[in-house]
Amino acid sequence: MRSRAGLLGIGLLALSEAACAPVARAAPPASTALTFTDDQLARAREVRDRALQDDTAYELLRSLTSRVGPRLAGTPGDAAAVAWALEQLRALGFQNVRAERVKVPSWRRGECRVELLSPWPQTCAAVALGGSPATPAAGIEAEVVPVTNLDELARIDSSRLAGRIVFFTGRMNRATDGSGYGRAVTVRSRGAAEAGRRGALAIVIRSVGTDRNRLPHTGAMRQDSSDTRIPALALSNPDADMLEDQLASGRPVRMRMTNTSSWADSTWSANVIGEIPGRERPRELVVLGAHLDSWDLGTGAHDDGAGVAIMTAAARLIGEAKSRPKRTIRVVLFANEEFGLSGARAYAREHAAEAGLHVLGMESDLGAYLPLGLRSRVPADRLPAIRQMQSVLAPLGVEYRGNDASGDADVGQLVPLGIPVCDLDTDASEYFDLHHTANDTFDKVDPLLVRKNVACYAVLAWLAADLPAGFGRAPAAPATTATPARR
Amino acid sequence: MRSRAGLLGIGLLALSEAACAPVARAAPPASTALTFTDDQLARAREVRDRALQDDTAYELLRSLTSRVGPRLAGTPGDAAAVAWALEQLRALGFQNVRAERVKVPSWRRGECRVELLSPWPQTCAAVALGGSPATPAAGIEAEVVPVTNLDELARIDSSRLAGRIVFFTGRMNRATDGSGYGRAVTVRSRGAAEAGRRGALAIVIRSVGTDRNRLPHTGAMRQDSSDTRIPALALSNPDADMLEDQLASGRPVRMRMTNTSSWADSTWSANVIGEIPGRERPRELVVLGAHLDSWDLGTGAHDDGAGVAIMTAAARLIGEAKSRPKRTIRVVLFANEEFGLSGARAYAREHAAEAGLHVLGMESDLGAYLPLGLRSRVPADRLPAIRQMQSVLAPLGVEYRGNDASGDADVGQLVPLGIPVCDLDTDASEYFDLHHTANDTFDKVDPLLVRKNVACYAVLAWLAADLPAGFGRAPAAPATTATPARR
Repeated sequence: MRSRAGLLGIGLLALSEAACAPVARAAPPASTALTFTDDQLARAREVRDRALQDDTAYELLRSLTSRVGPRLAGTPGDAAAVAWALEQLRALGFQNVRAERVKVPSWRRGECRVELLSPWPQTCAAVALGGSPATPAAGIEAEVVPVTNLDELARIDSSRLAGRIVFFTGRMNRATDGSGYGRAVTVRSRGAAEAGRRGALAIVIRSVGTDRNRLPHTGAMRQDSSDTRIPALALSNPDADMLEDQLASGRPVRMRMTNTSSWADSTWSANVIGEIPGRERPRELVVLGAHLDSWDLGTGAHDDGAGVAIMTAAARLIGEAKSRPKRTIRVVLFANEEFGLSGARAYAREHAAEAGLHVLGMESDLGAYLPLGLRSRVPADRLPAIRQMQSVLAPLGVEYRGNDASGDADVGQLVPLGIPVCDLDTDASEYFDLHHTANDTFDKVDPLLVRKNVACYAVLAWLAADLPAGFGRAPAAPATTATPARR
Repeated sequence: MRSRAGLLGIGLLALSEAACAPVARAAPPASTALTFTDDQLARAREVRDRALQDDTAYELLRSLTSRVGPRLAGTPGDAAAVAWALEQLRALGFQNVRAERVKVPSWRRGECRVELLSPWPQTCAAVALGGSPATPAAGIEAEVVPVTNLDELARIDSSRLAGRIVFFTGRMNRATDGSGYGRAVTVRSRGAAEAGRRGALAIVIRSVGTDRNRLPHTGAMRQDSSDTRIPALALSNPDADMLEDQLASGRPVRMRMTNTSSWADSTWSANVIGEIPGRERPRELVVLGAHLDSWDLGTGAHDDGAGVAIMTAAARLIGEAKSRPKRTIRVVLFANEEFGLSGARAYAREHAAEAGLHVLGMESDLGAYLPLGLRSRVPADRLPAIRQMQSVLAPLGVEYRGNDASGDADVGQLVPLGIPVCDLDTDASEYFDLHHTANDTFDKVDPLLVRKNVACYAVLAWLAADLPAGFGRAPAAPATTATPARR
């Protein structure tokens, strides 16, 4: 955590700079105030306390997971999710509810099977990584070469890789900030491309996940047009352990894999949008984002049904507040985060002209876990307002963590447009037990933690939409990007 | 727990009865002593302390799970397990190592698929129960009727069951003594037969397990020749939750299931036996039992690879002790516990003539968890010796719990022959998270808990094999059977 004194210092400096400006000796007019009044903060506390008694989000999540379920972009489940979201937003009283069409890639899982043939026959729990090509119908049978990570792969002589199946053994570390993910996920993103370039026939990776269940973790591969495309599968952690044990015998390990996943033509999905209009400046917006798509193995409860439900319920609470804030709250449920950020990129492109009307963006896409910290990416003179916002969340245990917010995967696409963002850090230590697995289901969600998340976003959105001066433009280049990649 | 004072009372009563017998005033000859000398107890403590430093069992378990893996009776994996066990016992210095052939049933899983069609389409994680017949190739499609348990089924009018799929919703409770299992497992054992008799087309049950993973629990159905046989599948707990949620909407829920499991002719497996010969009365035996077969979904790490490894390592430690006990330790690795106790029944039948040579039997079949209690089933005059045995385990946290041991599933088959038994109760609170699922793998096993179990059985076996008077014959009818069914 950054020192609070240091951050307060920045805020005071900003205020004193403002005090040197020509109009500074007089109180700024109400429309340009950089901080909140006691009355505004009191209203935010009311919203917070109502959120802590409200299960709208939890029930929305139950409905999404039970009635829609898996919703990989471009599938019938995805279309059902779009219809569900439009229906829910309308039923909850949102205005300007609409679907904005988004082109999405179309990859279908098929079936996959991994067997060890020798020295000791075993069947492994495995899944295809998103984007993996199929194997030939007869499968691929080859000796397994274990490699820790991409760095080690680069040091191995190509003759040891050619005609083999490369097994990436690196294990993701559990951490409250989810930082193990960024380090481990590189082999999922680029392992197949790098191993394919060196002559390997296929790769298997140890699942990028912190659990010990025989439920492998899928996730997208990054594929460039020049890449050699080879099949890429993930083993569950227990199966990776067992494969390592067989390799430790020193005998050659032969594996056979089959996979029938396939690509089809791009198809259509949609960003689903609904608004709670502001009472004074309805054209100006605070964006609350989450993604509507999910991986196909589970029902996308934490990833990112939770975000969809939390952001929708937070905006609805604001819509029902005794006094609405000055600006509009826009909920954006993005299409296809998982497989290439299609919805966020389309939104950034198509709404670029109104970037100046976007006062602040936030995203919930790390499950419904305990809120721990607030980060911002705002001009220095807005930090006192951010600290006031955090002060309303302090009773929930939320500390201020610095001005290095990323906006996360989807809303992060708005940062290059100069749109300020905040991140709510939550305890990520259990998220990667479930992430991208069949186990990401509603029973794993704690309703009290859902309420806490709704409370945080409702407070932040209410206040952001009511700050007279807004948040200016986002600082362009962060000193650090503390939040991990979360896709 | 029974009161220790009460049990001591029984023991003292037994001693005073002995004191009234004709030869009682003199010390009994060494060959009939009913209690242990300090020297015997000291040797048992030595065995215990060596066990607490020894990873033979853990490494045996690693080998069994990695090099053999799943070993459902009658499969190639089962044959590999028999070969593995013979090899290991010989390599560890056991004598009279042999396989005694046992006829076993032959059921094969095939593939199963469960989909909800309406009101909201979903695919469920499901497995066939052991023994389930296949569905017709086109599957079974019907409305789902939820029923809590067999009692509720009996109260429902048959017209509501005919042509339907019955869904048993009852949930297993977590408990240290595993007692939730016995209550919940009745629907797995008899649900299909009872629902079939009432006209249902098939059943699905909520998994008999305490976890929240999308890894359903299999297990045997009990089928009598007069039963109407209908397909029987288990849903994972999260899928059962989701199905209940759809049912709670009040709309009819239609399910489609397909299952391709099949029966073949009975085939052969074997009980694998090895001995550590006694130094004075080698024909007399203490039996250490576990079962070599496992369900097919996992690698049978806790169920019952742990028992195989623990009992083998305990006997080996005794074989390596400075002084071996008077009698022989016989390790019996039973065939096909899971699917009908074939090995235990064959052993009881074929060794009935030498029942009188079996001094005591024990079984490890509740995973490698923390030892908590010792139960016995011995004549009252042997209770002081049992309490001495427990005293050596007391530093490990093992209390004495009563004279109501069952011998568990396999060794329990010896009790009708009058063979005394002891049970080591272990903490069963996590066992049913994994039991009969794909998740029962080596990574779930704690090596320190394996050592503690080995220490307990090694102490009990060493002392039992060295008690001059032996344990007489087992009391026939227990007042209660406290240990739960564990299959």
